[in-house]
Amino acid sequence: MSHHVRVGLIGCGNIGASFAGLLAERRADVRGTTGIDLELTRIAVKNLGKPRPGIDPALLTDDTDSVVLADDIDVIVELIGGIDPVKDLLLEALKSGKPVVTANKELIAAHGEELSNAAAEAGVDLFFETAVVAGVPVLRSLRESLIGESISKITGIINGTSNFMLTRMADEGLDYDAVLQRAQELGLAEPDPTADVSGADVASKLAILASLAFKRLVRADDIEREGITEVKAEDFDIAARFGYTIKLLAVAEVFRDAETGQSEIGAQVFPALVGLTHPLAAVRDSFNAVSLSCDAAGELLFHGPGAGQLPSSSAVLGDLIAAADHLRRDTHRRVPFGQRAVLRDPDRLVHSFYLRLRIVDVPGTLSEVSGVLGAHGVSIRTITQQGRGDDASVVFITHPASEGSLRAAIAEFSALSSVHGDVSLMRIVE
Amino acid sequence: MSHHVRVGLIGCGNIGASFAGLLAERRADVRGTTGIDLELTRIAVKNLGKPRPGIDPALLTDDTDSVVLADDIDVIVELIGGIDPVKDLLLEALKSGKPVVTANKELIAAHGEELSNAAAEAGVDLFFETAVVAGVPVLRSLRESLIGESISKITGIINGTSNFMLTRMADEGLDYDAVLQRAQELGLAEPDPTADVSGADVASKLAILASLAFKRLVRADDIEREGITEVKAEDFDIAARFGYTIKLLAVAEVFRDAETGQSEIGAQVFPALVGLTHPLAAVRDSFNAVSLSCDAAGELLFHGPGAGQLPSSSAVLGDLIAAADHLRRDTHRRVPFGQRAVLRDPDRLVHSFYLRLRIVDVPGTLSEVSGVLGAHGVSIRTITQQGRGDDASVVFITHPASEGSLRAAIAEFSALSSVHGDVSLMRIVE
Repeated sequence: MSHHVRVGLIGCGNIGASFAGLLAERRADVRGTTGIDLELTRIAVKNLGKPRPGIDPALLTDDTDSVVLADDIDVIVELIGGIDPVKDLLLEALKSGKPVVTANKELIAAHGEELSNAAAEAGVDLFFETAVVAGVPVLRSLRESLIGESISKITGIINGTSNFMLTRMADEGLDYDAVLQRAQELGLAEPDPTADVSGADVASKLAILASLAFKRLVRADDIEREGITEVKAEDFDIAARFGYTIKLLAVAEVFRDAETGQSEIGAQVFPALVGLTHPLAAVRDSFNAVSLSCDAAGELLFHGPGAGQLPSSSAVLGDLIAAADHLRRDTHRRVPFGQRAVLRDPDRLVHSFYLRLRIVDVPGTLSEVSGVLGAHGVSIRTITQQGRGDDASVVFITHPASEGSLRAAIAEFSALSSVHGDVSLMRIVE
Repeated sequence: MSHHVRVGLIGCGNIGASFAGLLAERRADVRGTTGIDLELTRIAVKNLGKPRPGIDPALLTDDTDSVVLADDIDVIVELIGGIDPVKDLLLEALKSGKPVVTANKELIAAHGEELSNAAAEAGVDLFFETAVVAGVPVLRSLRESLIGESISKITGIINGTSNFMLTRMADEGLDYDAVLQRAQELGLAEPDPTADVSGADVASKLAILASLAFKRLVRADDIEREGITEVKAEDFDIAARFGYTIKLLAVAEVFRDAETGQSEIGAQVFPALVGLTHPLAAVRDSFNAVSLSCDAAGELLFHGPGAGQLPSSSAVLGDLIAAADHLRRDTHRRVPFGQRAVLRDPDRLVHSFYLRLRIVDVPGTLSEVSGVLGAHGVSIRTITQQGRGDDASVVFITHPASEGSLRAAIAEFSALSSVHGDVSLMRIVE
């Protein structure tokens, strides 16, 4: 005897249609393995007239209430994205006792706590594995296997588009505009690539990861972010000479005060020089990886395709099976969002830095510039001058220093007649 | 209000003592996060007189029944290992309605089905995350997140001792005996290293991984295995020249017959030449990694410390929290062991091969040897002669061929006057 579960799908775009196909393909096997029979009962779409090959037209409706509020739907799968009107729809679904599976990182990063409270009050599940690195089961691991762990740091490459672009820049010496055009031609970047290249997408995902890993609620808005738009082809050349490549990283860390027992969280998204022997340096093209520093389990790395229709559909299916299984057993698992995190002032975060400045190539310039760094307590590991005359620039690699010191020093550079143009500044992760 | 769960521990050796310490350290946090209060209530040990720093002597008993059958114990954690008497103890515990958490790979690989049936009949959990790659949550991911996936292949480095030894051989040119001695001095290899270097430990872990990934029961005995004892320092040199390193791999693959719907599983443990750009080539020292080829989610890689007291304790704690949570909700999750797997005849498995033979350095030898390979349908990618005269050997790298063809060809080599001594044979994984 199998347990029959009626699934209502909201949204039937690329991922929705792919998920519907995967569910049809895997239904019999899932029934055999788990005893759960997942029936796709209804699909809410905006435009009923659009041709949808492979989708039974009898399932379609343009009335979302007939999915969200219907008595003959047991579980909701949301795959449209965005916050309005999705947030209200999902709150209604949860309040009516329906578990929700969503891929909506933007929504969870901004309103995950409200949704998770609504789920807990109704005694049903809220799952969102797909929101972060698609089919790589890192969120479930954080919610379950690692729930007893003390996790001190997350370091991740969690945006496939930007990682593809940086990999191509590193390998082929292409500049940003050329590689963006290539990514767009391949369908790996959107016509408007802002969310991917600005770090906004990464910040949403990092907010979710940090909230689950540290059990303190971090919102996307809490996260200081820099994208990859200012990374130059020449930075790759220089980085390679020092034994680094450049990656867009998501980094979150807990700072625990042993005396007060209080903790602060530092969370940032930035392009960084990553040592070539660092495990994340080997994450190429549109692959993603998340590294977790666990006090007892050690350094765990999860690696896989971070996006794509099939990997996303796989994660949705995994969540749906868990939600259906919990429904059958009349149980649920609360999202372990904790209290609001206290964010550490970014000026107090410490990194080694890579600094590239255009300088006037006259005697005394290096000493003047390094004097400013020294005056702010920034100690220098190497100084290298690149080019001569009008084309001269200088690259500093610093010892660990606070971001505040660096920013203060850079602010003073603008007053120096020997420095002109913008300063390229990147963190270094060994 | 927290839910109080009384934990009975069997075994207080290195991992048992470490787990007891971790539980004490994490207890308050786990209670805060999950609402579950885990109390270590009793510990069964063989020798009551042995000093156990950090362990409350009042918890110790040498009467295992007072843990396994006691009314004041809710969950059993088993950390002694071996099959006798542990199997019977755990069956008793499960039958009396107590969930079991164990790190015992040997027991699960041999008797997992019987234990899992006993757990299912009693409606309680059987968890054993620690049995495979310690704190890396790959088993739970297979049991939960990936339960709806169709997984076609597992490739893993799942023994830290042998991976440490092979890494040192590759980096430092040490031979097997020297590196084994080093590993023993560092406490990374046992005084009797047989289980680690023979592939027996890997076979147990692969049996568990394959059973959960393919939902067909695979036993350690089903798995053809070769250890690392025959890997020579010179093989690393030659491998490196062709762009490979050498790793002890666990490989299991499903072969589905589209016409009959039947499937066969090929499962092997062997030292292999692994392409230097393969993700597993970068798994160094005592780290472990498991790569899963998923039809929808794509290639997923889990990487982390595969052993050690703290990583193992972390995995036990994760399992214990799940078992306690399920107990609180009066639910459990069945281990998805399926029917007994049909194993594919190893002779039918296909690989590219690396072959090194000592030959008599006279004209015609290469043609004679390659003629034997050709007669068995083994096509050759490269032939390289190493050394001259008495010290001559020849290295073949073949195109993919069945193991049966290779074995048949090698059997014929012994009849050739031009080949003397043993043949080094390794599979190649690109």
